[in-house]
Amino acid sequence: MHRSCPSSIQTTDIDIEGAPTLQQAVRFALFHVVQAAARAELRAIPAKGLTGGGYNGHTFWDMETYTLPVLTYVAPDAARDALLWRYSTMDLAAARANLLGLQGVTFPWRTIRGQECSGYWPAGTAAFHINADIADAARRYVAATGDTEFEKAEGVELLVETARMWRSLGHHDSTSGFRIDRITGPDEYTALADNNVYTNLMAARNLEHAADLAVRYPQRAGELGVDDEEIASWRDAAAAMVIPPPDGGVTPQCERFTSLRHWDFSETPADHYPLLLHYHNYMLYSSQVVKQADLVLALYLCGDRFDAEQKARDFDYYEAITVRDSSLSASIQSIVAAECGHLQLALSYLGETAFMDLRDLASNTHDGLHLAALAGAWQAVVAGFGGMRDYGETLSFSPRLPQRLTRLSFGLLYRGRRLRVEVCGDEATYSVLDGDPLELIHDGESITVTQESPITRPLAPVPHRPAPRQPPGREPAVELTEFHALPQATHGG
Amino acid sequence: MHRSCPSSIQTTDIDIEGAPTLQQAVRFALFHVVQAAARAELRAIPAKGLTGGGYNGHTFWDMETYTLPVLTYVAPDAARDALLWRYSTMDLAAARANLLGLQGVTFPWRTIRGQECSGYWPAGTAAFHINADIADAARRYVAATGDTEFEKAEGVELLVETARMWRSLGHHDSTSGFRIDRITGPDEYTALADNNVYTNLMAARNLEHAADLAVRYPQRAGELGVDDEEIASWRDAAAAMVIPPPDGGVTPQCERFTSLRHWDFSETPADHYPLLLHYHNYMLYSSQVVKQADLVLALYLCGDRFDAEQKARDFDYYEAITVRDSSLSASIQSIVAAECGHLQLALSYLGETAFMDLRDLASNTHDGLHLAALAGAWQAVVAGFGGMRDYGETLSFSPRLPQRLTRLSFGLLYRGRRLRVEVCGDEATYSVLDGDPLELIHDGESITVTQESPITRPLAPVPHRPAPRQPPGREPAVELTEFHALPQATHGG
Repeated sequence: MHRSCPSSIQTTDIDIEGAPTLQQAVRFALFHVVQAAARAELRAIPAKGLTGGGYNGHTFWDMETYTLPVLTYVAPDAARDALLWRYSTMDLAAARANLLGLQGVTFPWRTIRGQECSGYWPAGTAAFHINADIADAARRYVAATGDTEFEKAEGVELLVETARMWRSLGHHDSTSGFRIDRITGPDEYTALADNNVYTNLMAARNLEHAADLAVRYPQRAGELGVDDEEIASWRDAAAAMVIPPPDGGVTPQCERFTSLRHWDFSETPADHYPLLLHYHNYMLYSSQVVKQADLVLALYLCGDRFDAEQKARDFDYYEAITVRDSSLSASIQSIVAAECGHLQLALSYLGETAFMDLRDLASNTHDGLHLAALAGAWQAVVAGFGGMRDYGETLSFSPRLPQRLTRLSFGLLYRGRRLRVEVCGDEATYSVLDGDPLELIHDGESITVTQESPITRPLAPVPHRPAPRQPPGREPAVELTEFHALPQATHGG
Repeated sequence: MHRSCPSSIQTTDIDIEGAPTLQQAVRFALFHVVQAAARAELRAIPAKGLTGGGYNGHTFWDMETYTLPVLTYVAPDAARDALLWRYSTMDLAAARANLLGLQGVTFPWRTIRGQECSGYWPAGTAAFHINADIADAARRYVAATGDTEFEKAEGVELLVETARMWRSLGHHDSTSGFRIDRITGPDEYTALADNNVYTNLMAARNLEHAADLAVRYPQRAGELGVDDEEIASWRDAAAAMVIPPPDGGVTPQCERFTSLRHWDFSETPADHYPLLLHYHNYMLYSSQVVKQADLVLALYLCGDRFDAEQKARDFDYYEAITVRDSSLSASIQSIVAAECGHLQLALSYLGETAFMDLRDLASNTHDGLHLAALAGAWQAVVAGFGGMRDYGETLSFSPRLPQRLTRLSFGLLYRGRRLRVEVCGDEATYSVLDGDPLELIHDGESITVTQESPITRPLAPVPHRPAPRQPPGREPAVELTEFHALPQATHGG
C-alpha cells in the first residue's frame, strides 16, 4: 500500500519560547507519539507504545481520546490507520455487545486484538464511554481531513453501530428522560454510577452524529438496516439524555455524586497515594475523591454544554478532590485550567504531563512511556494555551499565554492545509501555509485565513479568578522554575 | 461444658392438618435445621450444614437471618452457640473493618473461620447488611431467652462494634440525612446501590439497639470506650437514616431503583434461568429484576416501618419482578404474601421452600441441602401463617389459615416457657405449657396467657386483594395439589 509521508517536523512542530526544558519535553512527547503510531499500520497503538512491558501491550481508550487527537492534526494517515484497526475489530465488538445483551457493538476496555481483556468489569466493560470516544475520534478525523471515503465506508458503520449500542444501553424513565445507569465514567474511583455526565454527553453526540451520517449516506445506512424510525430514536435519545442538574452550583459527575462522603484528605498520608493501593474500592467508590479528570474532561470535550461560569465553578470543585492517581489527568486539568484563566496552574500541569517520563514522575517509566500523558502534552499546548476546540463546524481557538512563556506556536494539518498558529505578547496570528482559504473562529469571531494574508488578532482578556486548591500534597508535580533548567538524567528502573 | 438438652420434639413440632406431604416436608426441614446446628458447639453453621460440598463449607448471612430465628425458638442453646462462634471472630472482623477504613467490625460475607472469603466484592463485602443481620440475631436471641449474661458480655460488644461500623459506613449529606451509599442489599442482581431500604432500616435498628444496650450496661459500654456523645451519634444516625420515599406509590428497593430499565421477561427464555448464568452482571444490575426478596425482606423484618397498604402495593410490585434465582426467597415471599392476604400464594411458596431438597427443585441437592430454605419453611409457617413478629417488646401474632389447611399448630420456647399456638377454623389458641404468665399480642390486642388458662381469639378477617403476578414461568414451583400426595423419590445428581 502506498502511504503518504507523515507531516514534516516543521509543519507540526511546537515552538515554545521562555522555557527551554519544557520546549525539549514537548518535542520529546510529540516525537514519541509519532514514533508509536506512524508506522503502526493497521495495528493497535498500545498504552505504552512499543517502549515497555507495562499493561502487557494492551490498548485502552487512551488511543482514541489522547493519542488520536494529536495524530489527527499531525499525522492523519496514522490516525486513519488506527481507526481502521479499531474498525477491523467490529465483529468481535458485535459479539461482545450480543453477549452483554446490547445492540450494535461494544468495544473492549482493554485489548490486543479486539477481545475484551479486562478482568474486573466494573472498571473495564462498565466504562462504556470508550465507544463514544471511538465514535468521536472518527468524527474528529473526518472533520479534520475531509476523508469522506473513510466516512462513507467505515465511519458510518462505526457511528451507526455505536449509536445502536447507546440506544440499547440506556432507556427512557417514566418522565421520558433517557438514562444510562450503572456504568463507569473515566474516573476509576467511581464505578457503576448513574448518568455520568461525560458519558451521557458523549453518547448524545454519538447518537446525533450517527443520525446525521445516516441521513448524509442513505444508501450505506440502508445497507446497515437503518430506517427513519431508528434515526428518530437516536435523535430522541440524544435530546432526552439525562444530565444531572447542578447541586449547590456544581455539576455532579454522576447522579448524587455531590451527596457522597467527603474524602478526608487531611488524614490521608502522602505515602498512601496512589489511593488504589491503600484503600478498598468500597471506600473510593462511596466517596467524593476523583482519580482523574471526568467531569473536567466533559468541560473540555463537551465544552459547548457548559457556560463559562459553570465551568469555572465545576473546575474549582473537582480540582479540590482530584488526586491525579492517573497519568491521564494532568493534561486535561491543564486544558480546563487554561480556559478558566488559571494560566500558571495550566502551565504546571503541562509540565507534569510533559515531564511524566523524562523525570519518571510516576516512578514506573521502566515499564514504558506514558503515551497518553505525552499526547496530552500536545493537547495541553494546543487545546490549553491555544484554546483549540474541534467539536464545532470548524476549528476554534482562544489563545492565551502564561507569563513565563514569551511565544508559542504550533502547526496543524487541516483539510489539506498547513495551518500555523503563533501566540506572542498579546496577539495571535493564524497562517495558512498552503491550500485554500480557511474559515476559523478566534475567540468567537469568525475569520477567514488565506495563504496570502495571515490574520492577527488580539488575545481576549483572561478572566481573573482565585486559584483553585488541590488536595494537600497533590499539587502539580513540577515546579515552574524547573522549566528553565535542562532536566537531570533520570535513573532507569 | 454441660449443655442443656435441646427442646424435645413435642415442644416445638409443627403440626399441619390437610396436607400430609407438606407436613412431612416441614418436619424434614425442621429436623435438618436442628441436625445442622444442635451440636455445632461454637462452630459455624455452613449454608449446606454438613450435608454436601456446596459452597465449600462456607457460612453466609443465611445463618443469622434464616437459621438462627428458628434455633432461637426451637433450640436456643444452639442459637447461643452460633452467636458465640460469630463473636469469636470479632478480632478478624475488626481487622477487616480497619482494612476497609471503617470503625468497629465488618463481618465477612463468606467465611469458614472468620476471614472474608468472598472473591467478588460487589456481591460480597459490599453486602454490609450481614452486620445488622448478626446484630439482629443477637437482639432476637436475648429477647426470646432473657439471656442477660450473653447480652451483657457478648451482646453489648456485638451491638456496639457493629453500630460503630454503620456510623462510619454512612455519612450525613448537606440536608443532614444519613446516607449509606454504594453498598449491596440482599438482592444480588442489584449491587453497589445507594440507600438500600432493607440495609438502612436494619442499620437504624442496629444503631438504636446499640444505644439502648450502652445505656443499660454503662460499665460494659464504658469498657468499650462508649461515651454519651457516641451514643447520641448513633441515635441521630438512626433517626436521620435516608429511606427513599415511595415513587408512584412503590417503595424503591434502593434510590432510583424504580427508574432502572424494565426487564423484558417476555423475551427471557425459560432455560435462561437462573439469569446469572445467562446475562452479564451489567444487564442485571441496571435493570429492575430481583434475584431474591430484598425490599420484601424489609416488609417482613422491619414491618413496623410500613403500613398495610404500602406493604400490599410494594409486595405486588416486587412480586412481578422477582425471579427467585435464590433459594433464600420463597420463604420470605410466603411470609409477606400471607400478611398481605394472598394465602394460597403463601402456601405455594411454603411448599417451594419446604420441598426445595425433597424434590430437588434447584437441581443441585446433590451439593447438599439448602439449609436456609429449610429454615425458611419453619419461618413461613410461624411468621407467615402464624403471623409471628418478634421485633417489638413481646411476640405478636396474626394467624391466618389458607383454605387447604384445616389446622396448624406450632410450639416455641420463649423466655423459659413452652408456648403453643394452634390455629383451627376461624380461631387461634395460645397455651403456655409451663412457666410464668406471658403477655403476647394477638392481632394488635394485648393478651396474657397463663399456664392455667389458654386464650382463644377469633382470627382477624383476611384482606381480600387481587392475586399478584410473578414473571412468566416464575410462579411457585410446587402445585398445591401435590401437598396431598407423598413425594416421589428424587434422583440424586
